[in-house]
Amino acid sequence: MSRIFNFSAGPCTLPLPVIEEAAAEFVDYKDNGMSIIEMSHRSKPYDEVHHEAMTLISELLEIPDNYKVMFLGGGATMQFAMIPMNFLPAGQSCDFTVTGTWGKKAYADAAKVGDTRVIFDGKDVNYLDLPDPSSLEVDPNAAYLHMTSNETIGGIQWKKFPDTDVPIICDISSDFMSRKMPIDKFGMLYAGAQKNAGPAGVAIAIVRDDLMERCPDTLPAYLNYSTHAPKDSMYNTPPVFPIYMVGKTMKWLKSIGGVDAATDLANQRAGLIYGAMEKDSGFYKCPVPEAARSNMNIVFRLPTEDLEKRFIAEALEAGMSGLKGHRSVGGCRASVYNSMPVAGAQALADFMGDFATKNG
Amino acid sequence: MSRIFNFSAGPCTLPLPVIEEAAAEFVDYKDNGMSIIEMSHRSKPYDEVHHEAMTLISELLEIPDNYKVMFLGGGATMQFAMIPMNFLPAGQSCDFTVTGTWGKKAYADAAKVGDTRVIFDGKDVNYLDLPDPSSLEVDPNAAYLHMTSNETIGGIQWKKFPDTDVPIICDISSDFMSRKMPIDKFGMLYAGAQKNAGPAGVAIAIVRDDLMERCPDTLPAYLNYSTHAPKDSMYNTPPVFPIYMVGKTMKWLKSIGGVDAATDLANQRAGLIYGAMEKDSGFYKCPVPEAARSNMNIVFRLPTEDLEKRFIAEALEAGMSGLKGHRSVGGCRASVYNSMPVAGAQALADFMGDFATKNG
Repeated sequence: MSRIFNFSAGPCTLPLPVIEEAAAEFVDYKDNGMSIIEMSHRSKPYDEVHHEAMTLISELLEIPDNYKVMFLGGGATMQFAMIPMNFLPAGQSCDFTVTGTWGKKAYADAAKVGDTRVIFDGKDVNYLDLPDPSSLEVDPNAAYLHMTSNETIGGIQWKKFPDTDVPIICDISSDFMSRKMPIDKFGMLYAGAQKNAGPAGVAIAIVRDDLMERCPDTLPAYLNYSTHAPKDSMYNTPPVFPIYMVGKTMKWLKSIGGVDAATDLANQRAGLIYGAMEKDSGFYKCPVPEAARSNMNIVFRLPTEDLEKRFIAEALEAGMSGLKGHRSVGGCRASVYNSMPVAGAQALADFMGDFATKNG
Repeated sequence: MSRIFNFSAGPCTLPLPVIEEAAAEFVDYKDNGMSIIEMSHRSKPYDEVHHEAMTLISELLEIPDNYKVMFLGGGATMQFAMIPMNFLPAGQSCDFTVTGTWGKKAYADAAKVGDTRVIFDGKDVNYLDLPDPSSLEVDPNAAYLHMTSNETIGGIQWKKFPDTDVPIICDISSDFMSRKMPIDKFGMLYAGAQKNAGPAGVAIAIVRDDLMERCPDTLPAYLNYSTHAPKDSMYNTPPVFPIYMVGKTMKWLKSIGGVDAATDLANQRAGLIYGAMEKDSGFYKCPVPEAARSNMNIVFRLPTEDLEKRFIAEALEAGMSGLKGHRSVGGCRASVYNSMPVAGAQALADFMGDFATKNG
């Protein structure tokens, strides 16, 4: 086997030791005579796996006791629906920052459920820049302010969040666990697992108790957060394997030093790749102004589309995959989530240098 | 490793060759230099996995072209919500057969969404028996009739479905692929995967085109079937690993002879266990009348609760787990889904004989 540096935007690379450990114990989980995926979710071994994953998330993100951590199906997309259904009461409206594809989708669902107000729309800057958070005029009566901490397609990331008494609800799928968050600003944080936390198939929702009180009991069971929270997300059969892998990924993150280490590594990776662009700035262009640049999804353009195609093809031959930009915007994109080794970013930076020299 | 006969009601035993194959290819999927769970869901290798799983389900259940197969998150419980939200228009009502825990939950969600009518409630028989389907008085104007083909807790199973022009929507989670179904009676069939189809984390929904036309575009994206069907359940990142395992399990089912073989094996397993009860009928009692007995979840009582406890403990020592009845009803239960080897049912039948002899 020759392991590839996988720059896919998600599902994406996971830590090799995590993958290897899961493979090794897959057929017979800890001498129980069966696989972890064959076990009742009410069994002791799975119960331990489930609660350990939950506890590690709280511990690593330093989540206070007045928040509940939940594991839910349907990805972050399902949260786009559940959030307004639970937290946007009739007669109140919510504020949105529409910063890219993910913000747009979250907004579209909220607009189907209740009253909304867009306080920032990145349309005029092609979703390639973000405003100063202090410039956002949040309605003090808003039910919540929705934000997307990082947009994977535009390659932009909020570095700070606005000061407001309105609870912020934030989609942190694409930079989950890559930095400390000022938790108490947030009524809710949520993330699909398949970028920074594990494989696809589970979303993590972290909800503050005062928001939980809003959940209307007119909602069908699965769609109500208050169905899941008191049962530790065991009201119905949870997505066992994705949660098990999230737990292992969190354990690995803890072993390398937790979120502070993740931030440091993210800065190293981003520094290498943005640095390579700067070194050959006549050849590579980053369409995002420096202040808004994501250190999770790094987008760049080459002089021509033809060169971009060759860049992507030759990178693959050199053991680097997933560098094609999203089909809606073209260009190149390197997604460098928590599990991407710095060596991967180094290899890409070196390759960028060589490619520019040969083709510049 | 000593593999156990795992009689858990779900998640449950899966075919050993399927588990072993997944373990063997987990670290490097088919020389792609990464695990299947690290791959973009838009990549060619995953796309093949996804569509093969979908095609195998259609092929094995002989689903006509005017039905769509979907993979969704949130389990069958999430379907309890989506079904009335999509298929129960204002001004129409739907009919329900409330046959046990699962029927009750499906009903409770529909009642939150719209008008409902219960045409059978098993309360008076403690959810341990079913009526003749021809006795059901279906409202000819009902939006649909909801049924649960097999109740895992009561251990009861519909052997036939009523003749009606009203589309039947049926939860087949616990006997999926164990028998041929008269598909054209059904507007929709759905199943959580974690009993007969694979691991937890994905539900399979099979919906007829004329029902798809009812999906209201006022629903948030994830909750609308018409978001998923035209995109082959790739609107958002699907639960990759659960779908991959469903595909492998379906391939295994095809290799052993498909649904007809599954029916034959189910009859063999059920025959062995119900036969063991009959042989020691002074010791074992099945609370379910013969005509309604499930061949997936086989419930039985021993003379005392103390003997039941010993039975379950000694069975575990003899390599058979998961025989405790559901906490809400007590007693014993052997869940024998498609992946349970006949040898497992034989071992249990033998053990039942020995235990009755020693303790009878």
